[in-house]
Amino acid sequence: MNAPTPGHALATPRAVPATMLATLQQRFGERCSTSAAVREQHGRGESVYDAAPPEAVVFCESTDEVAFAVALAAQHGVPVIAYGTGSSLEGHLLAVQGGISVDLSRMTAIIAINAEDLTVTVEAGVTREQLNREIRETGLFFPIDPGANASLGGMAATRASGTNAVRYGTMRENVLGLTVVTASGEVIRTGTRAKKSSAGYDLTRLFVGSEGTLGVMTEVTLRLFPLPEAVSAAVCHFPSVDAAVQTAIQIIQMGVPIARCELLDANAIRAVNRHSKLSLRELPMLLMEFHGSEAGVQEQAETVQALAAEQGGEAFEWARTPEERTRLWAARHQSYFAALQMRPGCRCQSSDTCVPISRLAESINESVAEAEASGIPYWIVGHVGDGNFHLSYLMDPNDPRELAAVEALNVKMVQRAIRLGGTCTGEHGIGLHKMGYLVEEAGEGAVALMRSIKRALDPQNIMNPGKVFTL
Amino acid sequence: MNAPTPGHALATPRAVPATMLATLQQRFGERCSTSAAVREQHGRGESVYDAAPPEAVVFCESTDEVAFAVALAAQHGVPVIAYGTGSSLEGHLLAVQGGISVDLSRMTAIIAINAEDLTVTVEAGVTREQLNREIRETGLFFPIDPGANASLGGMAATRASGTNAVRYGTMRENVLGLTVVTASGEVIRTGTRAKKSSAGYDLTRLFVGSEGTLGVMTEVTLRLFPLPEAVSAAVCHFPSVDAAVQTAIQIIQMGVPIARCELLDANAIRAVNRHSKLSLRELPMLLMEFHGSEAGVQEQAETVQALAAEQGGEAFEWARTPEERTRLWAARHQSYFAALQMRPGCRCQSSDTCVPISRLAESINESVAEAEASGIPYWIVGHVGDGNFHLSYLMDPNDPRELAAVEALNVKMVQRAIRLGGTCTGEHGIGLHKMGYLVEEAGEGAVALMRSIKRALDPQNIMNPGKVFTL
Repeated sequence: MNAPTPGHALATPRAVPATMLATLQQRFGERCSTSAAVREQHGRGESVYDAAPPEAVVFCESTDEVAFAVALAAQHGVPVIAYGTGSSLEGHLLAVQGGISVDLSRMTAIIAINAEDLTVTVEAGVTREQLNREIRETGLFFPIDPGANASLGGMAATRASGTNAVRYGTMRENVLGLTVVTASGEVIRTGTRAKKSSAGYDLTRLFVGSEGTLGVMTEVTLRLFPLPEAVSAAVCHFPSVDAAVQTAIQIIQMGVPIARCELLDANAIRAVNRHSKLSLRELPMLLMEFHGSEAGVQEQAETVQALAAEQGGEAFEWARTPEERTRLWAARHQSYFAALQMRPGCRCQSSDTCVPISRLAESINESVAEAEASGIPYWIVGHVGDGNFHLSYLMDPNDPRELAAVEALNVKMVQRAIRLGGTCTGEHGIGLHKMGYLVEEAGEGAVALMRSIKRALDPQNIMNPGKVFTL
Repeated sequence: MNAPTPGHALATPRAVPATMLATLQQRFGERCSTSAAVREQHGRGESVYDAAPPEAVVFCESTDEVAFAVALAAQHGVPVIAYGTGSSLEGHLLAVQGGISVDLSRMTAIIAINAEDLTVTVEAGVTREQLNREIRETGLFFPIDPGANASLGGMAATRASGTNAVRYGTMRENVLGLTVVTASGEVIRTGTRAKKSSAGYDLTRLFVGSEGTLGVMTEVTLRLFPLPEAVSAAVCHFPSVDAAVQTAIQIIQMGVPIARCELLDANAIRAVNRHSKLSLRELPMLLMEFHGSEAGVQEQAETVQALAAEQGGEAFEWARTPEERTRLWAARHQSYFAALQMRPGCRCQSSDTCVPISRLAESINESVAEAEASGIPYWIVGHVGDGNFHLSYLMDPNDPRELAAVEALNVKMVQRAIRLGGTCTGEHGIGLHKMGYLVEEAGEGAVALMRSIKRALDPQNIMNPGKVFTL
């Protein structure tokens, strides 16, 4: 499938000059690859697009190496696309204007654990799972968990969130500082390790969510949280998606400090059951987790159970052991791959709208009605405590009518979310796919302002060009 | 006192042409003032600086009027300084390069209360106290409370915080969206009412903390919070400032979700007692507040009492009634004015450093030792749960040696904070006073990047020029 955006269509690939390639090969040796397989792998992600491979992939092992590669690219006016684990969902990694991929997956050092300050500084290639493994002994954890085991650099680049965001915030709230290689190849640092600051422009949050278009983040300083004294997880089944959603809305409106509040529809549960060998009942379900003191967790659970009961929710089924809990959440995180297996050979297109919590039922219910009417297989998971959900279609990539139908349904979902005061993307980013939606959401004036910033920081348009907006 | 910065010294005032003034007078009538008293009032704040009055003050009543004034100023290349309540502490309001003041204090409409989404949209001139009065019936509140009854536009502009930030975050976390008049006089909107978004550059957080140098914020959409079921406040006295600070550090490191955790030293208590007719014991003290369920508040208080006891803290004295609680917090918020009265005719210079929590004792104790050795009257209040404190000197404005001594002490405090991994300003902003410190903290490269953004968004340098950094 081709990107349905002018940015892609108008792209004029900029060739990597032979001298530049030679310099990269001299500096990086075998860590500069031009093999078709490596390039192909780096020129796509988990999106619906066909790969658009870069001309070369450079496996960097330090900020200095990234700075070297970017400075060289700047000298030659060649695009640079940062690559972490390749879990992007919106086409961020496609080399639509050519250039090189800077792979950060070998930058996996934990630079400093400051447990007494609840902060950690890591290289951008560290994944969320590695981080949590390496800090386990400290009694702290890092809560942000997009489904994939993404790199923290990539998560910062897309302003990722996940299941814990309802209580702990997203990458927006949890990145304290960055080391960034700018478009000229200079190394700067943003933020400090202090919890707050009023010192100058918030460069940290400008880079967070900039999808590689303003610079390459090579180090990330993050907030950590004490592991809660008590954790308990429960599932609650509902007679309808609407009943589950109404319950989630009330939990938030009452200010219950729930840690996770996830919706799975019957289709998602069916996939998860098959993939993860679970036997969850195939009814709409909230999967919830409560963090706090023993008494606090108990209190939260009682409040939520009462709210659920009013909507016809059944009695909570508790995950009694940490192992049971881990198994449930692993299943939730694997739901994407589980669902893909429900239609062999398919590709998946996920919506990612997020709306003010009071409009969530409208946002989901109308989308469900449209999905049912379409006859195309779909499933829903949602970070409903945040007003964010993913309705994902399983499409036959060889059926142009189906692709077009899904795109049309997606447009309706996004336009509805914007009309309801929400956003076209809660956590996946704009990439190639949502450039048009960004303009609808933010308006021409705001996007023009983003363009001015881009031109100021990347005058040659070499940092992941052709993404987020057209220039 | 003159601003000790090149930005001020090099300022070349840009005159308001007679034709521009005539156009303003025609459009705004009596709401365009050139009276000396009004100009003088708008050309200063609560900082140590002598006033630098604008040439005219325009009292705007709508976004359109602000856009008109800014577009006109852009046409003539004349500086524009936004004015809320005048409570800036770092010289933000001085018209160091001339121009007009755009007064937003009459823009006090509550545009939309969306209680069911826990959001509100207000005009920028609404103050935090007005907001909380107007939403009282909803069962929600807005927690951010700098000492002054500042305007929400001004609070957004300086990325303000205050006593509740330890639990609820700062303006950085609590502004969801903005209406902004850009440097060309165009009106844009940033953000949405959704709780999170990955849609494009985070313009909201770029404007938050930009101190009026990138545009004028005219409307602000904010997060609200449910009033907690139970609130209790207590004071705890300690044998030393260090003992109080060690307790605060442990509260945070243990993850106690304390809502407010304020330090007052004996000097601050003395001032507060006299000004607010209280009879607090004149010993270092933590003033704390706990929010949650009845049981949760009880649990938190017990944990904190145990931590305090280990540091020699005395038994908690509880504010038993809401009135008693309000009186304590009002006294805390008036501590600035209370302290000013301890030395008639003095001016005050407040530090505002913020460090990682584990370095807070070092940061405060060394500053106290220097303050004691100086012999100059001072007092300390601190949002110690955030690692943020204010050591404020009461200076004789007619004694140049004292002014120089305080400036030298301030430099030492700031450099110490930066050395400890912190920031030169936790919540007051850079303004005129801290431009040099910003470079020390962020580095030339990061400040150069801020300058690029400023030039891109405000090519004529008319938005509050000469602040934050030199161009």
